[in-house]
Order: sequence, then structure tokens, then C-alpha cells
Amino acid sequence: MLVAVSLGPGDESLLPPAARAALERAEVVVGYKGYMELVSSSLLEGKEVFSTGMMGEVERVNRAVDFAQEGRDTAVVCSGDAGIYAMAGLILETLEARGLLDKVGFEVVPGVPAFNAAAALLGAPLMHDFASVSLSDLLTPWETIEKRLRLASEADFVLAVYNPRSKRRSDHLRRALDIVARVRSPETPVGLVKRAYRPDQEIFVTTLGDFDSELVDMQSILIIGNSTTRMAGERMLTPRGYHTKYTVG
Amino acid sequence: MLVAVSLGPGDESLLPPAARAALERAEVVVGYKGYMELVSSSLLEGKEVFSTGMMGEVERVNRAVDFAQEGRDTAVVCSGDAGIYAMAGLILETLEARGLLDKVGFEVVPGVPAFNAAAALLGAPLMHDFASVSLSDLLTPWETIEKRLRLASEADFVLAVYNPRSKRRSDHLRRALDIVARVRSPETPVGLVKRAYRPDQEIFVTTLGDFDSELVDMQSILIIGNSTTRMAGERMLTPRGYHTKYTVG
Repeated sequence: MLVAVSLGPGDESLLPPAARAALERAEVVVGYKGYMELVSSSLLEGKEVFSTGMMGEVERVNRAVDFAQEGRDTAVVCSGDAGIYAMAGLILETLEARGLLDKVGFEVVPGVPAFNAAAALLGAPLMHDFASVSLSDLLTPWETIEKRLRLASEADFVLAVYNPRSKRRSDHLRRALDIVARVRSPETPVGLVKRAYRPDQEIFVTTLGDFDSELVDMQSILIIGNSTTRMAGERMLTPRGYHTKYTVG
Repeated sequence: MLVAVSLGPGDESLLPPAARAALERAEVVVGYKGYMELVSSSLLEGKEVFSTGMMGEVERVNRAVDFAQEGRDTAVVCSGDAGIYAMAGLILETLEARGLLDKVGFEVVPGVPAFNAAAALLGAPLMHDFASVSLSDLLTPWETIEKRLRLASEADFVLAVYNPRSKRRSDHLRRALDIVARVRSPETPVGLVKRAYRPDQEIFVTTLGDFDSELVDMQSILIIGNSTTRMAGERMLTPRGYHTKYTVG
């Protein structure tokens, strides 16, 4: 059995019992080194652990499939939700390419996605329709990313931005924000959360006009408001529209 | 203290410890009747419970704020994630309208959103950029919803569709699917999950061309693939693109 386990933002208080149970059951735990640190050592005790660094996804998943094929209960851990920009898809692709779809059991345990953790800390920015865009052009042409940002902005989606900082290209985020700024006011609230629910968590709220890209690192999630998003005190709020139909308060 | 608590899809195995702790701490639990049934009775024992039916959101939130203002620890429960089409925003709006933003503590406990639960059961449909659109035109003009569907389709986002069935208008979903079908192949996989992770859960996978709107009810989540989404065995898969850079399998 092969299970893609969602670790959530990292704190065990946001690890659902189903994910914990999958880790407890596993004989082998496979994952990116950085995520392995999010798993408490008591959950790893007595298990075989296979972890590698960034860009090692294909190797890790192949090894995980090897383990599962040998009949060992294997968990592939992912931060956030295993189904969002994570390993669930590559596992399916690998099982398919190796002709094992019917031979190795596979399950995804959903979790708390990174952008929901960020949203909760920022207030209520996602209350209405939203789109999620990754700025990583490692596996996606940058033109596609720009097109998505442009159309999502025109559609007035609240935007969740994953991988806002690239090691290789430092101007991606600036270009992304410029695209959004073509149709949204400079006053649009923008929230930035680094390492949500981890000990060194940081939360910033600013505006599209004042946003400082230098604050952003690889572990940041950005949430850009839509045309109705505003501040309620120190929190981001995208009203759902109750005030147009009801008296609120 | 007022806490918006995410119940996740409903099964306790997907209720993180932070949400459970918030419910245990609460003196008053407020929520929609239908969601109250997702909370195990042991967690409600000895607490005041205030629940009303659909459309009672404004009244419920006002009562929750009353309770919190009296100094009672109050939890407002939401299914899925409290920050997605749920109560976190209305609570903020209400605190603001009543001048209580600085006087009543407010926190959101994030959870497993409905569309992630659905995605996990369908395979790996959300592995790339996605957009979430609610078809409810109760608080949003239908023209806005159509525009979002059109632009999100053009942007090739995987689509998560909330509230796919309206009591008042039965043709919304058909019109929504027609908009998507203008730019996506009839072979595009579409997943439908009803009552994810509940005892009477149902999972359907079909195509945009063959989709039967009659299957859909108020508790359904729809996931419509993008141009790259395909079936891997019986599961939906939106490849992230590793195969273009690496040899998978």
C-alpha cells in the first residue's frame, strides 16, 4: 500500500488523525528532507526513512513505488495538501508508467493546504471565488503563468500565489504583481505568510502598490485580494456579499 | 473569544487536533443545523448550542458575537475550511459593523477544504493551477459567475465547482458546463464527489461531454480537468509536467 500523506502547514495541531494513522501504519516513510523535519521523530521511530533534497521528486517517488511493490506499507509525505502542487500526481504517473496501477494500492490522505493556513492567519481573504497560481516555471512555461495571472485578474479572482520566489529568476514575482496591478487598484490588500503555524511564522499585510518583493522567500504564500477585498482592522476581508442582501451587524 | 472552526469534510479522522481543541474549549457552539450533525455529541456535551437552518447565517453570526461579547468562548463551526465560502468573513464583517474588532478576540482554525477532500478521492486532479467558482447566485450576479468560468477556462485552470446545484435555478450547472465546453474537449475528465468521507459518500468520474447534471445535489463538489487532465486507470490525473523534463517510471 502506498499513501500520499498531507502534513498540512507543519504543526501537529493541524495534522488530522487520518494522516497520523497513515504515518503510524507505514513501514517506510519517503519525503523531501525539509518536510521530514515536520514529522515528529516518535512517528518515524522504527521505520525506514528515505529522503532526498529538492529536485529529487522522481527518484523519491520511484523508490516509494519500489517499497510498496515489495509489499511494504509506504507513506510519501507532502507539506500542505498532498493533492496541491505535491506528490499525488507524480505517484499516479509513476504507477501508470510502470504498469502498477492495478497492482499497488494507492490512497491520498487530504490535509490543510498551505494557502488555507495562510488565509486563516490573514483573516478571511478567500471568502469568494479564488485561483491558485504557482510562479515556478520549472515545469510550466512562463508565458502560461503570465496568461493565467492576467485572466484570473480580469475574472476578479482572489489569488493565492505559490512558489513566489525562484532561485533562478528574481523578477518573476515583480512581473506577476505588475500583471495584477494592471486591473486592480494599488490599494488592493496583499497578504504574505511565511512558515505558517511554525515557530518562526511571519505575517505581513500590505497593498499591491506598496508590496516589497524582497520580503518573499521560498517558503512564502501570497494572497492577493480581489476588487472587493479590504482591511477589517488588521485583517484581510473579502466580503461574500451579505451586506448587499442583509443588514450585517 | 470567537473562533471559526473548520470541521473538514465531516469525518473525525479529518478533524485536526486544533479544531477539536477549539471545540473542547468552547462554552457555546454555533452553526448551521446540517453541520452540527458532523460534530460528535461528546464534543457538544455540557455546552450551549445555537443552530439554525439555511439562510440563517447573519442571525447565527450575530448571536455568536453576542455570546463572545458576554465573555463566553464561542465556536462557529463550518464544514470544509472556515475560510472558503464559509463564516470567517461574515464574522469579521459583523465584528467590524458592531465596532468590536478590537474588543472581541477572533481566530480562524483552518481545516481540510471540501474540494481537497473530493480531489483526494478522485486521484490527483489539482496538481496544477486551479480556480474555485461557486455557482450560487444568491450573493453574486450570475453574469460575474459566467465571466469567471469563461476566463478560468481560457486560462486552462482546473476548476473546482462549489454549490453546483441551486434550488431555484436548475439550469445553472448546464450553462456552466457549456461555457467550459467551448474551450475544452468533450473528453475532459470531470469528477463528482458527494458527501466526501461521510458514510454515504459517492464518487463519479465521467467526461465533460457525458456529464449528467441530474447526478448533482447540494452536497456535491465538481472537479473539471484542464487540457492536460486525463485518466490514469480509474483516477483523474493532472500531470504537473515532470514527464517533459524527466523520465517518469
